[in-house]
Amino acid sequence: MTAIEDFMSDVRTDVDRTMDGIIPRAEVEPVRLHEAIRWSVFAGGKRIRPALLYAVGKTFGASEAELSRTAAAIEMIHTYSIIHDDLPAMDDDDLRRGRASCHKQFGEATAILAGDVLQTLAFKAIAEDETLSADIRVRLISVIAAASGTPGGMVSGQQLDLNAETKKLSLQEIDSIHHQKTGALTSAAAIAGAVIGCATDEETSAIKQYAAKIGLLFQITDDLLDVTQPTEILGKTAGKDAAAQKPTYPAHYGIEQTAIIAKNIRNDAYEALVPLQKDTTLLRSIADLIHDRIN
Amino acid sequence: MTAIEDFMSDVRTDVDRTMDGIIPRAEVEPVRLHEAIRWSVFAGGKRIRPALLYAVGKTFGASEAELSRTAAAIEMIHTYSIIHDDLPAMDDDDLRRGRASCHKQFGEATAILAGDVLQTLAFKAIAEDETLSADIRVRLISVIAAASGTPGGMVSGQQLDLNAETKKLSLQEIDSIHHQKTGALTSAAAIAGAVIGCATDEETSAIKQYAAKIGLLFQITDDLLDVTQPTEILGKTAGKDAAAQKPTYPAHYGIEQTAIIAKNIRNDAYEALVPLQKDTTLLRSIADLIHDRIN
Repeated sequence: MTAIEDFMSDVRTDVDRTMDGIIPRAEVEPVRLHEAIRWSVFAGGKRIRPALLYAVGKTFGASEAELSRTAAAIEMIHTYSIIHDDLPAMDDDDLRRGRASCHKQFGEATAILAGDVLQTLAFKAIAEDETLSADIRVRLISVIAAASGTPGGMVSGQQLDLNAETKKLSLQEIDSIHHQKTGALTSAAAIAGAVIGCATDEETSAIKQYAAKIGLLFQITDDLLDVTQPTEILGKTAGKDAAAQKPTYPAHYGIEQTAIIAKNIRNDAYEALVPLQKDTTLLRSIADLIHDRIN
Repeated sequence: MTAIEDFMSDVRTDVDRTMDGIIPRAEVEPVRLHEAIRWSVFAGGKRIRPALLYAVGKTFGASEAELSRTAAAIEMIHTYSIIHDDLPAMDDDDLRRGRASCHKQFGEATAILAGDVLQTLAFKAIAEDETLSADIRVRLISVIAAASGTPGGMVSGQQLDLNAETKKLSLQEIDSIHHQKTGALTSAAAIAGAVIGCATDEETSAIKQYAAKIGLLFQITDDLLDVTQPTEILGKTAGKDAAAQKPTYPAHYGIEQTAIIAKNIRNDAYEALVPLQKDTTLLRSIADLIHDRIN
């Protein structure tokens, strides 16, 4: 394996072990609820947000023990949003990460509750993280709640996305929705790493720039994959954007030009790291990983 | 007004003002989301949990400023649970507090998001409460997340309630469900007041006893009102328990005997306060208020 593959494998192992410790065992009552949570959490997600958090945290000298629970919490919030986003009243998606979405497998009511309580468990995990000072814990909860809430956060983005279904949006408007819907929590993961690593304000500001580029890069590659990869490789329904006539980057610029834009944004992410005066190999590798991903 | 009416009126004013400051204004985008949140939050709820929190906090000498945000946060978590509980996939209730439930008014997708983000805003509000030390803030988040999560918390109780729809339960099983579904957060409100007021372990233990009785009293009076009051006074659909053939206290013991049980539990709540050696007039009045309520 390459160094970044090693790193991603370690991240997955650690974040999965940590989530396994936070989420009640499947045998605990109510069994159905805990099975549903575990179905969605342990479905082989890419763990991009935890990877960003670990990479930034390690860049600033934080230990793995200090990073684990916050990384797990952010992944749990991401998973709650996916469970609710897949519901019939929302995106109505039956397939997620190559298998039945939570509500297809466990019913709508349980899926709603599984999402609800993943959010609860996430904030609880940070509040009870004894490897961090109480001051850092409340700062982390504040940053993550702002990014996953409203205004300007993940839930705002989902609401704007819902509103957009009935009207034609510009690419700029779509960018703004993505920035809230997925970019904010991605950025929060990077910022959380900086908070735990006690980065200075200047350093945190560079990390914010970098994270914004990573978030945009993730979205553009997502758009590209939607039109270039089949459902089997994506693990979710392919061609959804085109079917919904969404104004994506490929729809606007064409596939070839979009690939060039993606490369430029990857380079912008590199650029944002220059002021740090740290070894940023890992952070640059994550930009490459997202740029080069096939699903 | 009586002293307790004065107190309840002050609680409502303060908790509503605090929530108004925490929740984005209705004019802020996404407007629909913020309107939906405000529709459900400012629907004239009884504010029983905030009242308990203030009453316990004041008993231990906490100031109103120290209590406001946590009281608001607990009320917001209670409201999120109501919004999701009313959804078609859950209890499917069109009426709440005398008017359309959130999903009837704003659609299912927005109601799901409104509930989601109320939880987020609640934990954010506590994390950012500068009247409290960071140590107290993380303790509060931990207590409230445990009570509203799983296992043993509000969401567990809702899942058990769902599971119960297809089978006959004993009154004891129903008690256990209620204890999780509504009792846990009610207790957490009282315990949060003790945490903010820096109560000793012995004092907190007495408050837990008291809160458990209050939670049970609330449930039994709820059961009674369901069979004795019309929909107009309840502000929610009357006779639902009987229609669903739920094994409630009145169904099991009859109305008259249930009223006696309610009075005994009110007296148990009084009794639990004896070890405190404080002025507990307010806490006893809250027990009376719940015992005597007509909706």
